[in-house]
Amino acid sequence: MSVMQKSGLGPGPLIILVEPQMGENIGAAARAMLNFGLTGLRLVKPRDGWPNAKAGAMAAGAAAVIDNARVFGNLEEAIADCQYVLATTARKRELHLPVFEPPAAAEQLHHRIDADQTCAILFGPERAGLATEHVALAHGIFTIPVNPAFSSINLGASVLLAAYEWGCAAGRTQSFGSRIDTATAATQGDVDGLVGHLVSALKDTGYFYPPEKREVMERNIRTVLTRVEFAQNEIHLLRGVVKALSEKRRGK
Amino acid sequence: MSVMQKSGLGPGPLIILVEPQMGENIGAAARAMLNFGLTGLRLVKPRDGWPNAKAGAMAAGAAAVIDNARVFGNLEEAIADCQYVLATTARKRELHLPVFEPPAAAEQLHHRIDADQTCAILFGPERAGLATEHVALAHGIFTIPVNPAFSSINLGASVLLAAYEWGCAAGRTQSFGSRIDTATAATQGDVDGLVGHLVSALKDTGYFYPPEKREVMERNIRTVLTRVEFAQNEIHLLRGVVKALSEKRRGK
Repeated sequence: MSVMQKSGLGPGPLIILVEPQMGENIGAAARAMLNFGLTGLRLVKPRDGWPNAKAGAMAAGAAAVIDNARVFGNLEEAIADCQYVLATTARKRELHLPVFEPPAAAEQLHHRIDADQTCAILFGPERAGLATEHVALAHGIFTIPVNPAFSSINLGASVLLAAYEWGCAAGRTQSFGSRIDTATAATQGDVDGLVGHLVSALKDTGYFYPPEKREVMERNIRTVLTRVEFAQNEIHLLRGVVKALSEKRRGK
Repeated sequence: MSVMQKSGLGPGPLIILVEPQMGENIGAAARAMLNFGLTGLRLVKPRDGWPNAKAGAMAAGAAAVIDNARVFGNLEEAIADCQYVLATTARKRELHLPVFEPPAAAEQLHHRIDADQTCAILFGPERAGLATEHVALAHGIFTIPVNPAFSSINLGASVLLAAYEWGCAAGRTQSFGSRIDTATAATQGDVDGLVGHLVSALKDTGYFYPPEKREVMERNIRTVLTRVEFAQNEIHLLRGVVKALSEKRRGK
């Protein structure tokens, strides 16, 4: 995979909106596409004609996607150069087609686009979705796992999820709570320094009372301050806090 | 995990929109939430007041989410009962917070919500996103891996991706080395109490010097103490520590 493709800005699936009704949704789709590196938009018989000012307004900075959109008179023409087509639908069809949820669809598409296939995802009109004869032109079903009690998903939202999963599949690097690396993690010595400083200050106050509980009280403090995984600059901050509180007490 | 939760209709993270500007985006957020089984919406100072007819129109069939939205005068109040908060942001911050991409965030949230924690995801205003002082109130960063060449993502789109990943994770939740144990997690209110107590004690010492740096010094303290995810008993321990240090200073 080239660097271009890894950045999400290489070739990607075409997004084909079949008989879209609202310009706002076309614009939202364009913006969502570019958010995840997709640029190829095709429209089949947009209800309000083309170009559409509302589409341009909703696209925000993604005007290039709108400006380069290609318009077709029917779906067959729009997919004539495509080698692999997925149809978005929520409803069950009497069609013997493989069904892909978004991550699986994205991997399927990456695999084919890496092999230089021209791929597309079809989205139907807002009100009714794709007609069965349109779905029948596809190689597979792209389905979004919505709440069955409220499955009416916005057209722009469907395009967004397809684009998002496309973008994610490009990197597929899961970061499980990785820290922002600008801060250096404290060493155990840093933490010991903070604990020692605090315990010393607390001794002066009579905090460790009764004396036989001192050990467990000290351990509790150490436990809290150890498990936190402070950054070094946080340790400095906290030592400043302890210093301020304890120095004043000594009458400075 | 109960059947309710598996269906995505059990408890989920609260979605908190901070100073949202356009009613349409609030409505789109509500619809996206319900598409993936989320229902708890909170608004902090919505620009155009509340209720908002445009929000209702865009929510389509998700009127119940809009009708049950709660409105707050500031973010601190909106998250006072929350035990774990993620802040959505694209920009890098000088904050020592863990960063989660959507799938990792969803698993983190599932894990905590299964343990009965109250969780929330914060989204900032359309134009500028969350302010740093708002991000500083969170335990982690929720970040969406957008195309760096076009990262301006719509507010409703951000909420959609969070809700979508929440819904997807419902099927594949598994515990991963997290340290949620039997201790009850502190609420944001508990942390506020500790921060207030400490700041008050520090004011008496002259710690906040020079005065023009006070705000940033105070925020640094708040950031450290928030991200730690204290248990309630740890908060009590630390308030005892602050009390000991500051009382003695007052000459007791």
